[in-house]
Amino acid sequence: MDRRKFLKGSALLSGLLSLSPAELWSSKRNTEPSGTGKAKNIIFMISDGMSLGTLSMADLYSRNILGKESHWLSLYREKKVSRALMDTASASSIVTDSAAASSAFGGGIRVQNGVLNIGANGEKHIPIWQKYKKVGKKVGCVTTVTVTHATPAGFCINSAKRNAEPQIAEMYAELEIDVLMGGGDEFFNPSKREDQKDLYSVYKKKNYQILKNHTDLKTIKKEEKILGIFNTGALPYSIDKANLSEFGKTPSLAEMTAAAIDQMKEHPGGFVLQIEGGKVDWAAHANDIAALIHDQLAFDEAVKTVMDFAEKDGNTLVIITTDHGNANPGTIYGTDTTKNFNSISNYQYTNEYILNKIHKDHSAKDIKDWIFEANKLVLSDDEAKHLQSFYNGLEKEEGLYNYKKLPFKLYSEIQKSRNSVGWISMDHSGDYVEVAAFGPGSQHLQPYIKNTDLHHLMLNAVPL
Amino acid sequence: MDRRKFLKGSALLSGLLSLSPAELWSSKRNTEPSGTGKAKNIIFMISDGMSLGTLSMADLYSRNILGKESHWLSLYREKKVSRALMDTASASSIVTDSAAASSAFGGGIRVQNGVLNIGANGEKHIPIWQKYKKVGKKVGCVTTVTVTHATPAGFCINSAKRNAEPQIAEMYAELEIDVLMGGGDEFFNPSKREDQKDLYSVYKKKNYQILKNHTDLKTIKKEEKILGIFNTGALPYSIDKANLSEFGKTPSLAEMTAAAIDQMKEHPGGFVLQIEGGKVDWAAHANDIAALIHDQLAFDEAVKTVMDFAEKDGNTLVIITTDHGNANPGTIYGTDTTKNFNSISNYQYTNEYILNKIHKDHSAKDIKDWIFEANKLVLSDDEAKHLQSFYNGLEKEEGLYNYKKLPFKLYSEIQKSRNSVGWISMDHSGDYVEVAAFGPGSQHLQPYIKNTDLHHLMLNAVPL
Repeated sequence: MDRRKFLKGSALLSGLLSLSPAELWSSKRNTEPSGTGKAKNIIFMISDGMSLGTLSMADLYSRNILGKESHWLSLYREKKVSRALMDTASASSIVTDSAAASSAFGGGIRVQNGVLNIGANGEKHIPIWQKYKKVGKKVGCVTTVTVTHATPAGFCINSAKRNAEPQIAEMYAELEIDVLMGGGDEFFNPSKREDQKDLYSVYKKKNYQILKNHTDLKTIKKEEKILGIFNTGALPYSIDKANLSEFGKTPSLAEMTAAAIDQMKEHPGGFVLQIEGGKVDWAAHANDIAALIHDQLAFDEAVKTVMDFAEKDGNTLVIITTDHGNANPGTIYGTDTTKNFNSISNYQYTNEYILNKIHKDHSAKDIKDWIFEANKLVLSDDEAKHLQSFYNGLEKEEGLYNYKKLPFKLYSEIQKSRNSVGWISMDHSGDYVEVAAFGPGSQHLQPYIKNTDLHHLMLNAVPL
Repeated sequence: MDRRKFLKGSALLSGLLSLSPAELWSSKRNTEPSGTGKAKNIIFMISDGMSLGTLSMADLYSRNILGKESHWLSLYREKKVSRALMDTASASSIVTDSAAASSAFGGGIRVQNGVLNIGANGEKHIPIWQKYKKVGKKVGCVTTVTVTHATPAGFCINSAKRNAEPQIAEMYAELEIDVLMGGGDEFFNPSKREDQKDLYSVYKKKNYQILKNHTDLKTIKKEEKILGIFNTGALPYSIDKANLSEFGKTPSLAEMTAAAIDQMKEHPGGFVLQIEGGKVDWAAHANDIAALIHDQLAFDEAVKTVMDFAEKDGNTLVIITTDHGNANPGTIYGTDTTKNFNSISNYQYTNEYILNKIHKDHSAKDIKDWIFEANKLVLSDDEAKHLQSFYNGLEKEEGLYNYKKLPFKLYSEIQKSRNSVGWISMDHSGDYVEVAAFGPGSQHLQPYIKNTDLHHLMLNAVPL
């Protein structure tokens, strides 16, 4: 090192003097925004159940088929974010469920799988969105599954059971969460709730504006609280929404995200917002590659929406991550792997839609015709007959989201032989996962963390 | 930002003046060694075929069973390294083989799978170890597979076919690679080579010291070139070496690594050394979890050996990565996942050893007894009979390293039901992979790279 040379360099020196001490000794990349490490807002983005293979394949699909890299990876190429590898374990297992995972982020402690922010001795850990609400911030959750699902719930409420969704819908109203958007009419609508309570009325009395479809997003009134419930259960998968008019009325994750930010961004006290790509996880549970890639890309569009805001704003800590891996999908070596993988662009619908359309009175030829229409795959007679056996009641599959016992696994195996994508199981994995962070406070992200560390990262960046 | 406050702070200012411009504007974390970004030596470490799940599970096993974190992840926790995510594709496929992958690192271009540093039009790209040899550095390769295998070969030679290992063994002698350690007697020994050439004599004439077993490592003479060939083919898996005396005479990867560094570190011109954990890949091809974890941990011990040297030395660029994923193994959600995963510590031998020990005259009960002895697993009668059918010639499996058509896949499926670890296939995957870099030059590692970028990172850090 030549200090004199350095001191002589007036251009360097003047450049130097425009840097703050925090910048000089920070661990951040030089393209990061400067500042005190304190933020006003937080946007916490979760692609639920995203194994590294999901991130990789969505980027690859985007590059090969859409002709552009994913937004998530462009943040890396452009050196805009800090990165970490995160251990996602829960208190009860090396492989977490989404309730314990969200509690780690939202409550700052590891709890048993299935539990929301309640410790081993029944102690309630106050969820972080409640804390920020108390100090005057607007708080919100946006998701593609039910708004009462484990991942949004983990930032907002305490519950011994994640599946207490009807009760969670009531808790949200009491807490007056400022923005809620996603699915879950079944937990708000008196005609669908067991107890026949009309939660929409409850919310209206608390000055909520109720949104029911896509176009309602344009009618949002500033200064009202928002409850946007766009489907009975979860929102449709992105690929089905794109190709089937019956799913056309629901907004995309990016559209909900833009509306949520718009609603909260002018609040003097700032805001905190969770955004979940919840059906990435469901697609992995179903071993459904087209559903997975297109929902990951829909999440990626929301990343762009968030970053467009956060880069201009300069006061927002953005965290982009997942809560756990799921099924570790990946492309498999072989002579035609690239061609096979790219053939996924011929897939028109989710496997859920495809398999639900088959009925027991369909012949093997009917099934072959339908699969060709839906996926441009030519099934053998044996394959068609094997699928048929599930509709004749001769065989059945179990599975977390497989209410109708349809042949998701068999069909994924059939697709695998054509698209070169494999899966280790139909459930979560314990792989360490990817974390990216942007904005003030992101410089404190360490390279290797536990999920609970993100709780403290938020509290450090946006003190109570 | 308050500049005056900053300029007044004399402690800060004096601290500032001990920083070089390179440090001020570098993208490195503040714990990184300072300097010009130029190194004298390179150590390039490759855990061949290491999916993120392999890294995760080895760390988890180390923490759960051995009571300590892995060295690789401790480098993250201690913020000693830069990290990147790397796209590993080859010229011919989104999923590379080890020859094309090593050519990307060693030759700086993407070639077709199966090819070593020869481009689409037959052009030869001079491998990087040849270039460094030419400017006076010592060059070496250490591996747990044959020294003539694709990964070491990709840094040293050009060949249209990666499996030209007998010829590659001759090329190394011509190039006078300074240190070669690993397996591959079959390609050097006149009684094993088809052409009956005695390559050991050829090497001796070129002033090589020949090492044949573990204890020979202690006899190494400084200033001689070293050819250490410790087995006919690849070296044994670490777990078999630990538990079976018949494999006891081969050195560990860390021991070879220490000897190689020791042999080259005092060379005035510096040295460049590739270290490969080659059987991590083979274990993934075999879907053999115990082989995989123990060989990844053996690689991890070599990481410690390298870092202990490099941290003291201060002039060595260290790159720690893999060439591609393989089989995307991972732990699977379930009630007993942690207990199941930890039961892998009961496994005594590789599946290769276990399955090779079964013969066609073994009864189902014999098989059950042996599996219990080897893995502490209680097989059902049906499982034992299913395994038996492979030895009676009723069934067989294919596979890259499955010369004897043994039931690797079936046995892995049986284990999966007890250890909660799954695999997507028995071959390479196209997932983006983990890269860590330490020492001068590592500050230029970008967060998202192609495999070929590591070639240029080396040339920038250690110019020719």
